[in-house]
Amino acid sequence: MNAYLDATHDPALRSWVESANAPCSDFPIQNLPFGRFRLAGETAWRLGVAIGDQVLDLRAAGLVDHADMNQLMQATPQERRALRLALSDGLREGSSQRTAFEAALVAQSAVELGLPCEVGDYTDFYVGIHHATEVGRQFRPENPLLPNYKWVPIGYHGRASTLLPSGTAFRRPLGQVKAPDAAQPVLAPTAKLDLELELGIFVGRPNALGEPVRMQDAEAHVFGITLFNDWSSRDVQGWEYQPLGPFLSKNFASTVSPWMVTLEALAPFRLPFERPAGDVRPLPYLDSAENRERGAIGIQMEVVLQTERMAQAGHAGDVISRSNFSEAAYWTVAQLVTHHTVNGCALRAGDLFGTGTLSGPEKHQAGSLLEMTTGGKNPITLSNGERRAFLEDGDTIVLRAYCEREGARRIGFGECRGTVLPSLQMQGEAA
Amino acid sequence: MNAYLDATHDPALRSWVESANAPCSDFPIQNLPFGRFRLAGETAWRLGVAIGDQVLDLRAAGLVDHADMNQLMQATPQERRALRLALSDGLREGSSQRTAFEAALVAQSAVELGLPCEVGDYTDFYVGIHHATEVGRQFRPENPLLPNYKWVPIGYHGRASTLLPSGTAFRRPLGQVKAPDAAQPVLAPTAKLDLELELGIFVGRPNALGEPVRMQDAEAHVFGITLFNDWSSRDVQGWEYQPLGPFLSKNFASTVSPWMVTLEALAPFRLPFERPAGDVRPLPYLDSAENRERGAIGIQMEVVLQTERMAQAGHAGDVISRSNFSEAAYWTVAQLVTHHTVNGCALRAGDLFGTGTLSGPEKHQAGSLLEMTTGGKNPITLSNGERRAFLEDGDTIVLRAYCEREGARRIGFGECRGTVLPSLQMQGEAA
Repeated sequence: MNAYLDATHDPALRSWVESANAPCSDFPIQNLPFGRFRLAGETAWRLGVAIGDQVLDLRAAGLVDHADMNQLMQATPQERRALRLALSDGLREGSSQRTAFEAALVAQSAVELGLPCEVGDYTDFYVGIHHATEVGRQFRPENPLLPNYKWVPIGYHGRASTLLPSGTAFRRPLGQVKAPDAAQPVLAPTAKLDLELELGIFVGRPNALGEPVRMQDAEAHVFGITLFNDWSSRDVQGWEYQPLGPFLSKNFASTVSPWMVTLEALAPFRLPFERPAGDVRPLPYLDSAENRERGAIGIQMEVVLQTERMAQAGHAGDVISRSNFSEAAYWTVAQLVTHHTVNGCALRAGDLFGTGTLSGPEKHQAGSLLEMTTGGKNPITLSNGERRAFLEDGDTIVLRAYCEREGARRIGFGECRGTVLPSLQMQGEAA
Repeated sequence: MNAYLDATHDPALRSWVESANAPCSDFPIQNLPFGRFRLAGETAWRLGVAIGDQVLDLRAAGLVDHADMNQLMQATPQERRALRLALSDGLREGSSQRTAFEAALVAQSAVELGLPCEVGDYTDFYVGIHHATEVGRQFRPENPLLPNYKWVPIGYHGRASTLLPSGTAFRRPLGQVKAPDAAQPVLAPTAKLDLELELGIFVGRPNALGEPVRMQDAEAHVFGITLFNDWSSRDVQGWEYQPLGPFLSKNFASTVSPWMVTLEALAPFRLPFERPAGDVRPLPYLDSAENRERGAIGIQMEVVLQTERMAQAGHAGDVISRSNFSEAAYWTVAQLVTHHTVNGCALRAGDLFGTGTLSGPEKHQAGSLLEMTTGGKNPITLSNGERRAFLEDGDTIVLRAYCEREGARRIGFGECRGTVLPSLQMQGEAA
């Protein structure tokens, strides 16, 4: 057991919540992810921790005296470890607190799960080097991976107001699109609606304006990780994105899974992070021995596509892609925090970083249809014979992820689900 | 008097607050802009309206029963007009409410002025066509104005956490920069720190997710306008901005002036908005007769640079640029709202749009040093003999703006002030 592991990671640990002990449960006692929930008829959110198929109400269990997730997320690493230990002690088999905690449990199936916190600012990064290379090839064939990519953790700001909790359906967006051979653009429902397989990184402790966060302190500013689907409109993106980056092609909807899996829970799945031989080394401010030794996290991810026809037939959908965070990402969580703050930018509790699309190098590891179908030119064929170049109305995308390795209890991220509704028709109003 | 004007715009109207009647006051009774203030020792913000050199405390005056600006901003146009009328009635010479309102006045010099509201999301547009053309010429000589510019109101998301109230100093940011002839980038304090002369447009009424706002409804979603300085690091920008747009080159600080001048107050200064002869017409969703008849707003703007030496000598600084919103902008406020929501993007009360840099076609009308000095190649000479290619430590930039025309009372925007502090030195921590 290394210095980052403690009794809460013991793979033999079992909970008196029996569903948490099922081998494939995403939420065994070793996980303990944080989220917000409410009961039917409530408007305010409660703070919860997932355990098996239940949610523990943190205030009802006497573990916090408020219901403000953003306040909880500002805890120091010591306070976070203490809370994790209290949760683990209370939920383990034979706990003396079982009666008190049992009264604070609610079935997940009986609650509404929201966004896990209030998000102030949302930044989307671009750490997936295979994604950046393939998308670059399609948008700029002569110059797929730009010269700054291996030096700068490329990122841009996104929109917090259109972050949606898992399970929310959204309308296919309208947007300006222009065919390459057309004289002018038109306003139309996007014909190239795509998903993006990402992870969401939630900031916990804030930094003051003007105070960069160094690599050795960076992870103390991160609370936890979720799944994240950054829905994208490729035809709108192609027409609008020069020179200031994506805008309406991205900001109509992004879906966040309900449970923040903490860095503490992910400790057993840390991996060395080394760049491929021959690559440039990161600048010193983005480098540290600890980052090279354990900067990566082994998270397996998958994308499920369920068409409307599949749903009607009771078919849960096809896994259309499988990827892995540590193989897809060219930059680590710590490097993102340090780069984001090197100019003195202030991060606040609840800020969200998207990782960017986490594709592996092969088509069956692609985190977007843009890559899987090479811009729509080679549609994929689904198990029921349907084909998809891009998403169609009624399609549901479910992202899932989990960590597993020999000698550790498997933990999961739950799911990140969204469904495409038909677009609104908008009349022109020129007069 | 047209349909948009009422008794509150009467140029002959005077206030019993004598300082409001001074011909050059930014805040005569015809203006009545909204902001937030607090007294020494207070942490919570109060809601205020500027009148002459005073602030009227809205709750103390009995006009609202809360202190939440974002709630106030959600008012319908009818409610907004009613509040404006109540303010005007209470503050005019001879008002029967003078005694009650007088007790709710505080001197502006005695209060701290904050950001005018809580900003959820901040979007920066790029409506200044002369700016876009000149910057495009410097970054892409072969292709200054991209083919989408006259079709798409180009915009991108910025960061809300680093919006600063006027008067805040900030550190020169560190960032990755790469000289054209260097083999690799370095981390260094930016050597090309710039200002950007913009206006800030504050959203009032929200729209629901998935519900675009049409042109004829767009201005009902706008509460008011401020000055806005989007400080920029040009060397960081040049290295980082491909392919996803500006990021750390912009998000270290943006300064907002304290007073939101309402669209109601700006009614006398509306102007026809027509594109130059020969230009393409906007797509129907971005066009309306009302927008062509009165979509523009005549706002005069100026940029003052006060160096540290000037400050020490008691010199208020040089006006280094004068520009005008209606001449600089290729897109109107209504077009920005409608375009931003055409994909169903949800706007919330308190969201901020930056217009983008509002430069006129001439060097002395440029809204940034990048343009004024042609990328630093031709420094400007100040009245005391100092020269500037970009901003130096100790420099203060003050933006000011006002509206005036024959037959209307002049109204002003106050000031938007910020000072550059020396950068932090950051050690590399490679190990």
